[in-house]
Amino acid sequence: MTQTTHAWGHGLATSDARGNVLDVWFRTPKLGPAPVTDELWVVPRELDALVGEDKRRLVNTHVVRTESDLTQPVSSVEDAYLRLHLLSHLLVTPNSINLEGLIGQLPIVAFSSIGSISLEDLDQLRPQLIKAGVVIHAVDKFPRMLDYVTPAKVRIADASRVRLGAHLSPGTTVMHEGFVNFNAGTLGASMVEGRISQGVVVGDGADIGGGASIMGTLSGGGKEKITIGKRALLGANSGVGITIGDDTVVEAGLYVTAGTKLTLITQEGEKPLKAVELSGVPNLLFRRNSLTGRVEALSRTGAGVILNKDLHP
Amino acid sequence: MTQTTHAWGHGLATSDARGNVLDVWFRTPKLGPAPVTDELWVVPRELDALVGEDKRRLVNTHVVRTESDLTQPVSSVEDAYLRLHLLSHLLVTPNSINLEGLIGQLPIVAFSSIGSISLEDLDQLRPQLIKAGVVIHAVDKFPRMLDYVTPAKVRIADASRVRLGAHLSPGTTVMHEGFVNFNAGTLGASMVEGRISQGVVVGDGADIGGGASIMGTLSGGGKEKITIGKRALLGANSGVGITIGDDTVVEAGLYVTAGTKLTLITQEGEKPLKAVELSGVPNLLFRRNSLTGRVEALSRTGAGVILNKDLHP
Amino acid sequence: MTQTTHAWGHGLATSDARGNVLDVWFRTPKLGPAPVTDELWVVPRELDALVGEDKRRLVNTHVVRTESDLTQPVSSVEDAYLRLHLLSHLLVTPNSINLEGLIGQLPIVAFSSIGSISLEDLDQLRPQLIKAGVVIHAVDKFPRMLDYVTPAKVRIADASRVRLGAHLSPGTTVMHEGFVNFNAGTLGASMVEGRISQGVVVGDGADIGGGASIMGTLSGGGKEKITIGKRALLGANSGVGITIGDDTVVEAGLYVTAGTKLTLITQEGEKPLKAVELSGVPNLLFRRNSLTGRVEALSRTGAGVILNKDLHP
Repeated sequence: MTQTTHAWGHGLATSDARGNVLDVWFRTPKLGPAPVTDELWVVPRELDALVGEDKRRLVNTHVVRTESDLTQPVSSVEDAYLRLHLLSHLLVTPNSINLEGLIGQLPIVAFSSIGSISLEDLDQLRPQLIKAGVVIHAVDKFPRMLDYVTPAKVRIADASRVRLGAHLSPGTTVMHEGFVNFNAGTLGASMVEGRISQGVVVGDGADIGGGASIMGTLSGGGKEKITIGKRALLGANSGVGITIGDDTVVEAGLYVTAGTKLTLITQEGEKPLKAVELSGVPNLLFRRNSLTGRVEALSRTGAGVILNKDLHP
Repeated sequence: MTQTTHAWGHGLATSDARGNVLDVWFRTPKLGPAPVTDELWVVPRELDALVGEDKRRLVNTHVVRTESDLTQPVSSVEDAYLRLHLLSHLLVTPNSINLEGLIGQLPIVAFSSIGSISLEDLDQLRPQLIKAGVVIHAVDKFPRMLDYVTPAKVRIADASRVRLGAHLSPGTTVMHEGFVNFNAGTLGASMVEGRISQGVVVGDGADIGGGASIMGTLSGGGKEKITIGKRALLGANSGVGITIGDDTVVEAGLYVTAGTKLTLITQEGEKPLKAVELSGVPNLLFRRNSLTGRVEALSRTGAGVILNKDLHP
Repeated sequence: MTQTTHAWGHGLATSDARGNVLDVWFRTPKLGPAPVTDELWVVPRELDALVGEDKRRLVNTHVVRTESDLTQPVSSVEDAYLRLHLLSHLLVTPNSINLEGLIGQLPIVAFSSIGSISLEDLDQLRPQLIKAGVVIHAVDKFPRMLDYVTPAKVRIADASRVRLGAHLSPGTTVMHEGFVNFNAGTLGASMVEGRISQGVVVGDGADIGGGASIMGTLSGGGKEKITIGKRALLGANSGVGITIGDDTVVEAGLYVTAGTKLTLITQEGEKPLKAVELSGVPNLLFRRNSLTGRVEALSRTGAGVILNKDLHP
C-alpha cells in the first residue's frame, strides 16, 4: 500500500532570523510517493508571490518540498505540518498515521493575522505590529485550521476553536462552544457543540451537545482511543470517558467515566456494572436517576444488551 | 399596527462574482412602511465610500433598498439580514417577528476582517489574504454582531460569542464563556456567562452562570420557547430544559430537563413531580440533594408553590 | 519595603477626541519608587513611533509617566493599567496589591486590532473600519493580555480567553476552553482548560480540566479567595466553591460548593460534613457515589484527614 504510507507536497515555510522553521503551509498535499523527476516538483506559482523577506515579522518565507513516511515518527517541523494538513484535507483519518514525535517537533510560535512570528522577536516587534493592526491569535504549537485549509461543506462558527489537524467531514457544523483538536474529528455529518479531544472520532449523524466533554482515551489509564457512534447524542454539559455506541444517548449534565459504577436495566432485571463494560454498546441511554441519584443504563430498544466482550471481565 | 409589521432600510450588500449576495449591512434599519417617494430613499452618504469592486475578496458591494413584511416568511438574503439587524438594534424582541425560512435564505460564507467572502473563492484567494493579513472569523451563516451593530451600554468580552440577531439590552454583560444566538437575548440588565440558545429570552437582573446551558425549546419535543425570569440565577455549569420563573435559582452543576422527576418540598410536605410542572414557577430553588442524590425543588420564600397550570396534567 | 509598595513606568496612552484616556500600554513596568531626576524619565524610543494622531480611530496617543502607590486604591485609568501590567509581567502576584476602585476607573471601550476606540465614535467610524479590515475583539473594560504582554514559556491557544491582568507563570498552558481573569492565574506550571475567576490562584502542577468552573470567593457569601493546590486536579466539567488542597482531586462533572453536605470516608468510618470544612485539605478525592448519588470525600493516601481548623465549627 505505497499509496497510503507516504505523502508529499510543496509547502510555504516561514523561518525566523535564526533559521528556525516556524510553520509550513501545504496548499495541496498529496498521498503517495513523491514524484521522482524534478519536473513534477515544479513549485506552484501561487506560492511564489508569498516568497521572500517579511520585515514586519522578521521572517523569511520559502518553498520546501517535503515527503513523509507516514509509518515512521515525525522527523521535522515540515513533516509535522504535512501530516496535520493530510488530516484536515481528509486524505487520512485520525489515528491512521504515525504521529509519534509530532508535539516535540512543533515549535511554540505566535500565530498572527500576517502569519507566524518567533516568540524571541515578538516583544521587539510589538510596537510596529500594533501600528499595523496585526492580530495575535495564539501563542501555541498548533494554528487555527481555517488559516490553512478550507474544509468543504463544513460550518465553523468560531475559527479559534478548530486546530490544524482536525478532520471535519462534509456536513459537519462546529458551533461556538464546539472544539476540535488535531488528529480528531468527524467521519460524517455531525453537530459539534462540545469538545472533541485528540484521538477522538465521531460517527455520522452524531450530536455532541453544548459544553459536552469527551476524554481522549479510556479514562482510568487506558490507551484505547474513544469514539462516538453514529447517531449518538451527548447531551449538553455531559461527558464521557468510554466509547459511546451507535444510537446511544448520554443525558444532559451526566459525566460517565470508565470506572462509573452503574446499574444496567433490561427486561431481565437489573445488573450492576462498571461503565467500561458498556463501552461501545449501541442503543443505550445513560442517565442519573433523579429520584435515587444512581447512574443507570437502559436499553433504548427494549432488546437485550450485549456487553463489550473485550472489556467485560 | 402597520408600524410593527413592516421594516425597511438601506443596506450595503456584498455580492460575489456570480451575483450571489453574501451579506448585507443595514446601518440604520427602521420599523414601519418604507417611504413611498424616491426622495426619502436617498442613499446614506457614508455607504457610498464602501460601494464598488473589492478585488481582495472578488466581490462587489452595492446599496440595496429592502423592505420586509415581518408577518411573512423570510424571502431573500437581504430580507434575512434586515430582520437580524432589527433584533440587534432592539427594534423588535426575539420571537416577535416571523423568522420562517431565515436559515434557508442565509448563505454559508467566510466572514473575514475585510468582510464576507464566497467559499467558492476562498481557496483561490488565500495566498493574497495571508499576505494582506486578513483574519477569517468564521465559515458560517451568521456573522458576529459587533461587526454590524454597536449595542448601547453593553459589554461583550469576546466578539466571537455573539451572533448578529442577538438582542442585548442596556446593562447586559456577555462574558468570555457567554454566548448569545440570533433571535435570543436579554430584556434588561443581565450577566451572561452561559449559553443563550435561539429563541430564549432572559429577564432583567438575571444571572446566567459560567458554562450554563439553556435549551432552546422545552426539552422532550415541545415547541414552547424557554424563558429565564427576572432576577433568576442559573448556577455555573447548570442547565435547564424548562422555563425558569422570576427569582428562581438553579444550583451550580445541576441540569433540569422537562422530564426530570423531582420532589417538591414545601411546608405541607413532599410531592413528586416532573420538572415541567414547575416550568415558569417563581421563587424556587432547584438542587440535587447531596446526601440522597435526588433532585428537589424548594420554595425560597416559604410560601406555597402554585404549579404551572398549562403544563400540570 | 518601599520596593514592593510602589511601581512606575512609561506608558503609551490612547485618548479620544474628548480627552478621555481609553487604555495605556506599559512596555516595561517596574517595581519600586519612580526615579526622581528627569533624566531617568527618558521616554523609550520605541514608543515614539506610536505617538501622534490616529485618524482611523479618532484618537491621540501620547506617552505618560505613571507612578502607583500599590497600597492605595486605584486612582486613574493610567494607574489601573499599570497595576494590570504588573500582574501580567509577574512583578506582583494576585491579591498582593490594592485593586480597590480598579473596575470603576476602567472605561468601557472597543478593543480592536489597531488599538482602543471610544464607543462614542465607533458607529461613525464603522464604514472606514470595515474597509480597513479592522477587527473588533471586544467591547469591554479589560483587553486581551496578549495584545499588551508576551508571557515567557506560556502557551495560550486562544488569545481571547486571557485578560490583561492575568498572572501566568512559566510552563502554563491555557487551552481553548481555558479562561483566566485579571488578578488571577497560576503560580507554576499548570494546564488550564477551565475557568479561573478573579482572585483565584492555581498551584504548580495543578490541572484544571475542560470546562471546569472555579468560583472567585468561597461560595455562600464568604470573602475568602479560593485557591487550587499544587498538583490538584479538577476533572472536566467539574466546579468548586471551596479552596482545593494540594494533590486533591475533584471528579469530572461534580460541583462542590461550600454548602454541599457530604460524607467524609476514612479508615475510622464515615462522618457527615459540609464541604467548607474540607476547604484546603490535601490529598482528598471528591466524588458523587454513582450508586447512591451522595457526595463523598475520600482520603487518597489512607491517612487520616485533618479538617480545616478555621472553617470547621
